[in-house]
Amino acid sequence: MVYWGQLVDKWDDLPTRDGILNPGYKLEWENFQHDIVTDYLGWQAKIVNEYKRPDQFITQDFSGGVHTNLNQWAIARSLDIVAENPYFETQARLNGRGIWLSDDLGRSLKHSNILVTETNAQTIGWDSRTQYPQYPGQLRQVVYTHLAAGANMVEYWHWHSLHYGQETYWKGVLSHDLEPNRTYAEVSRVAGELKRIGPDLVDLKKDNSVAILVSVDSANALSYMPVSDSVDYMSVLRQMYGALYDLNIEPDFVQAGDPGLSHYKVLLVPPLYSASDGVLQQISDYVKNGGQVVMSFKSGFTDEHSTVRDVMAPGPLRAACGFHYQEFTNLPGPEKLTPDPYALGEQNVGSVWEEFLVPETAEVVTSFDDHYWRFPAITRNKYGTGMLTYEGTYLSDPLQRELIREVLKRVQLTGPDQDLPIAVRVRQGRNGRGKLLHYYFNFSGQEQSVSYPYRDGLDLLAGSAVGHAQSLRLKPWDLAIISENGN
Amino acid sequence: MVYWGQLVDKWDDLPTRDGILNPGYKLEWENFQHDIVTDYLGWQAKIVNEYKRPDQFITQDFSGGVHTNLNQWAIARSLDIVAENPYFETQARLNGRGIWLSDDLGRSLKHSNILVTETNAQTIGWDSRTQYPQYPGQLRQVVYTHLAAGANMVEYWHWHSLHYGQETYWKGVLSHDLEPNRTYAEVSRVAGELKRIGPDLVDLKKDNSVAILVSVDSANALSYMPVSDSVDYMSVLRQMYGALYDLNIEPDFVQAGDPGLSHYKVLLVPPLYSASDGVLQQISDYVKNGGQVVMSFKSGFTDEHSTVRDVMAPGPLRAACGFHYQEFTNLPGPEKLTPDPYALGEQNVGSVWEEFLVPETAEVVTSFDDHYWRFPAITRNKYGTGMLTYEGTYLSDPLQRELIREVLKRVQLTGPDQDLPIAVRVRQGRNGRGKLLHYYFNFSGQEQSVSYPYRDGLDLLAGSAVGHAQSLRLKPWDLAIISENGN
Amino acid sequence: MVYWGQLVDKWDDLPTRDGILNPGYKLEWENFQHDIVTDYLGWQAKIVNEYKRPDQFITQDFSGGVHTNLNQWAIARSLDIVAENPYFETQARLNGRGIWLSDDLGRSLKHSNILVTETNAQTIGWDSRTQYPQYPGQLRQVVYTHLAAGANMVEYWHWHSLHYGQETYWKGVLSHDLEPNRTYAEVSRVAGELKRIGPDLVDLKKDNSVAILVSVDSANALSYMPVSDSVDYMSVLRQMYGALYDLNIEPDFVQAGDPGLSHYKVLLVPPLYSASDGVLQQISDYVKNGGQVVMSFKSGFTDEHSTVRDVMAPGPLRAACGFHYQEFTNLPGPEKLTPDPYALGEQNVGSVWEEFLVPETAEVVTSFDDHYWRFPAITRNKYGTGMLTYEGTYLSDPLQRELIREVLKRVQLTGPDQDLPIAVRVRQGRNGRGKLLHYYFNFSGQEQSVSYPYRDGLDLLAGSAVGHAQSLRLKPWDLAIISENGN
Repeated sequence: MVYWGQLVDKWDDLPTRDGILNPGYKLEWENFQHDIVTDYLGWQAKIVNEYKRPDQFITQDFSGGVHTNLNQWAIARSLDIVAENPYFETQARLNGRGIWLSDDLGRSLKHSNILVTETNAQTIGWDSRTQYPQYPGQLRQVVYTHLAAGANMVEYWHWHSLHYGQETYWKGVLSHDLEPNRTYAEVSRVAGELKRIGPDLVDLKKDNSVAILVSVDSANALSYMPVSDSVDYMSVLRQMYGALYDLNIEPDFVQAGDPGLSHYKVLLVPPLYSASDGVLQQISDYVKNGGQVVMSFKSGFTDEHSTVRDVMAPGPLRAACGFHYQEFTNLPGPEKLTPDPYALGEQNVGSVWEEFLVPETAEVVTSFDDHYWRFPAITRNKYGTGMLTYEGTYLSDPLQRELIREVLKRVQLTGPDQDLPIAVRVRQGRNGRGKLLHYYFNFSGQEQSVSYPYRDGLDLLAGSAVGHAQSLRLKPWDLAIISENGN
Repeated sequence: MVYWGQLVDKWDDLPTRDGILNPGYKLEWENFQHDIVTDYLGWQAKIVNEYKRPDQFITQDFSGGVHTNLNQWAIARSLDIVAENPYFETQARLNGRGIWLSDDLGRSLKHSNILVTETNAQTIGWDSRTQYPQYPGQLRQVVYTHLAAGANMVEYWHWHSLHYGQETYWKGVLSHDLEPNRTYAEVSRVAGELKRIGPDLVDLKKDNSVAILVSVDSANALSYMPVSDSVDYMSVLRQMYGALYDLNIEPDFVQAGDPGLSHYKVLLVPPLYSASDGVLQQISDYVKNGGQVVMSFKSGFTDEHSTVRDVMAPGPLRAACGFHYQEFTNLPGPEKLTPDPYALGEQNVGSVWEEFLVPETAEVVTSFDDHYWRFPAITRNKYGTGMLTYEGTYLSDPLQRELIREVLKRVQLTGPDQDLPIAVRVRQGRNGRGKLLHYYFNFSGQEQSVSYPYRDGLDLLAGSAVGHAQSLRLKPWDLAIISENGN
Repeated sequence: MVYWGQLVDKWDDLPTRDGILNPGYKLEWENFQHDIVTDYLGWQAKIVNEYKRPDQFITQDFSGGVHTNLNQWAIARSLDIVAENPYFETQARLNGRGIWLSDDLGRSLKHSNILVTETNAQTIGWDSRTQYPQYPGQLRQVVYTHLAAGANMVEYWHWHSLHYGQETYWKGVLSHDLEPNRTYAEVSRVAGELKRIGPDLVDLKKDNSVAILVSVDSANALSYMPVSDSVDYMSVLRQMYGALYDLNIEPDFVQAGDPGLSHYKVLLVPPLYSASDGVLQQISDYVKNGGQVVMSFKSGFTDEHSTVRDVMAPGPLRAACGFHYQEFTNLPGPEKLTPDPYALGEQNVGSVWEEFLVPETAEVVTSFDDHYWRFPAITRNKYGTGMLTYEGTYLSDPLQRELIREVLKRVQLTGPDQDLPIAVRVRQGRNGRGKLLHYYFNFSGQEQSVSYPYRDGLDLLAGSAVGHAQSLRLKPWDLAIISENGN
């Protein structure tokens, strides 16, 4: 399959040929391309809408993850249902992080359930260099991983493996021999289960308290002026998402400029490098009115045309942040911070980038331990009834996680799920019948045992009752789905 | 010099620009180019044949090694004599492996003697980054290395070094100063020897019992769907050739589809990824009729259009192999095998690729030692009066060598030559006068001493008699040629 | 800013597309491009000269360092004043080496004072990956670093940071906020100092005894036939310059063919790979008449068309060098030399290239310690009343330094400056009022203390007297300028 993103990538090469370019012009060009795609799909949808029957619907599959070369929210307005094609790493590398990032994003586009129109059947790859068939049980586990994030369907690319062409080794449920096989047997098993318990799983709804702000403009503008060869906008977004994953917290994604921020208690903001005064004001107001923001370096630096603001950074965010800065430096390696508020030792470091933050009303959480410059690395500013926690550097993964954990605690969003072993991941929601479901996944090759902390319920797959505080045993690459009693 | 292969390489880029391509189409395109070259050279030969005198002959130089962008056997049909230009690594890296691979291939094209039309005089290279003049004695040693493989002439590129242009540092016998030098002196010494003993060396004929099957289609088709960044068709071919080199066994090369397989006792088959049913049937029949085959992974997977077969792998080879498989996985690193049939310890490993072999009639030689999948890595199947040994993974070099050694033993092809130190390499053949010659080379900087195991003979270079079981002393980078008494 | 060199680079790609080229043709092409640039700038200067007022002058900024894609000496003939834009590494990496290489080159073009028209204000870079603001004091220190090399002005690119475009992060004195900042404060401080002592610093003149010969033809011709992926003409030039830097010796640069060589006592010659007989004769005569030459490998190998000479190397330099050679080899790694004349231990090595030097009249300083080839690595030849020291290999940095130190000692060019700690670098000259100035720089974060060895004088910045043998204390990233009493 060819995705829109791939087509757009080719056009993308054009304006970089000039050598010396206005990054703002590049951003206009990029967004012009987004509009072409949005308009084209909208025009197609309009035509289809004239002819389709009432029982038919329009969908479009995105290839998984956050696309920085599309306006996914705008496209979604032309769709009845959003579809995702999240391919994933298998064998010992399987977990829910990448799959849920795709599914959570897809679900957030229309705040509704999604379809998974493609995902790994057997091995994938455009050649034979990365053929990694799933361990026994993994295909089944992944079906439920999707459902736990709000998918209403899981479909494979494709029925049988192709005998020639580029996707010869992007294998289907059947191998090239067209005979029943291990994968077919596992698909059949899941199909049998879903026939039985599917009605208890479908139309799962979420009511998340945490959101990640997506600014595709920022991702693109920062990519024209990168701070690092390895760390970019998406690194920080994925790090923040990963911290939530590690904490067993489910987020929604919201687009920069979304007027519904007040729905959330906590907003995580990857480098909001390019944003209009209006978007920044919205975030500032969100804090003033009680919101908790965790914001990354470089936010507020340029406007919506990626033109640097001609006031002290971080521009319109200055009051909410409680500091200003005039200078910054790259960091050739990780730099120690002091104090070490989360007792992380070697991991209490910042790297890549250091802003020379001069606090005005902000409190310093930790600072760089450098001979010449001892600027704050993390600050915390009470503003109105909310708080803005700012990261003036690229944090280590554990530091990001612990910083976010502290913010979650502050607004009482933590509980027993945050203390589970990393192999056990939890998703929850309310099914179409109004029942609260708790999915427990064991993403490991070792059996796991955890205490079930919610109200008494029914283990849907086992068909047995589960009591509060009862021990749940999860086999390798397996799961349990508990439907709480009552509503 | 510009070789046909180089010209063809440029055309080769064209069809890969499309991104998504039918590998079969790429193979047709590749073979169309082969045909253009073959036809062009055949047309040239036809014109020359109309005018050349009876004492003149047509030759064409190949640049050494196996060419996957030419049909060398087809081209050879237009030639009276095949010529090779094997350039080689010098100084401490000099040995016979690469030189003999080229010469053996050249000799196999018409099963006849060859000419060496170019080879290292002084240093080579299109710039000054890899100027490595030969140690004293190496130029002379290499002349005999070529003769020992069936060359009837050794010629240099070129007489004197060029004073400008791309090949300024691809030096000739004379340096740029055009005066006598060390290389000229060594060439003169060899010339004097050849004047004396050349008639005893010329027209050396081989009667080899081992052949390596060459399938250029397989090399190309597999390169479109590589199993690895580092291991490809040629890696396995060179590994098999290297095992024979280490074992002091001389092979011929045969083209896939050659009807004369029955001439050989042992056939080594690098990944026969793309081959027609007919070619596979021929190999199956060869085994049935008593042949010993050592066959690499991926064989039989696609047909002559590189279209995957729609039956269980390995398709028409299934009976001869004695197994089938439906799945495979890449291996991120080397995986231990069990048992360890050749006591190789750390080297008893497979890497790159693992087929999920399900034995039917095959015996398991060794298997993967993995938690999830314990499939056979090597199998052995009696079929008719022969046997097919199959490698479902990429073996370590020592494992490949010992596996081949075992097969050679089974058909009584081993003797004292297989136990010589690695520095001492042997080649043999019958000269134009019907005498049996044994060449002993010392490819090292240390003197070597070995016991001469054949019938009494004459040391041609020394002019002295050599008796059975007598000790032969070989100086650094030197050799002895023993002509057996009698016929 | 776009430099001529950058434009020329694009045209430069053309003739390399052919694959097989006469390196001589490439050199003609390269020099044709140099002529276009020289002619164009000369034509512009001619037009301006018709209209400019007597108090106006023509300058042109070179982007720093030695340009191998321009004829800087020829261009300089059209200019009234040469300008340089030396950007430099900051923070812990700051020192005078790269800055002085640029300034010394610029000053040598017309043997006169220069302007610095651009240099680091705040951070530089075409994106945000290498933003390294200067430590406190470094900007000020660098102003004097330029003046100490003969600059009469230091100007910044640019006043304030740009808000969009490729040079958004190539920051000016002011940040994007356009408000006073740390850099503005430091610039102001220097401006105040210069208002006071500037008249004592301006028009500094040098009378250097050491010169480095620049042959852009050699740099280019050798780049077509490189000896290494990492070592080229400029590596050796920079190594020789670095040795002088380490020894606190200030050189001029002279262009190959300059008739004024006799002004210098010592001439350092990086690989003079492409040079006419006349240029080589000039060097030969320079030695004969008492000059000391230190010459690198590959010198004399090709003529001015990069055609290899058809006589024994080093061609017309043979008598002055006192050896000939016919062969050479690359070296895969460093090779030990014997004896170890400067007691360098592990650093007594040659690498990259070994010429098989056969001494005629030359004395051997040290030789390769190799089983096959024990050729001299360094030779020394008395010729007429001078001496030519030849390096037949790429020396380690310490070996280059000590070899040059020995040559300097031979002609009494050493004194107390050569024994200073590496952090303390000295420059000297006579100002416009005829006073001798000694600049002492501390390029480190640690305070340094040195003994002042010259005649009593005045510390211009401190305004205090300094006596002979008095201790000078230099703060981190600071300096002292002593004006000797008398004339």
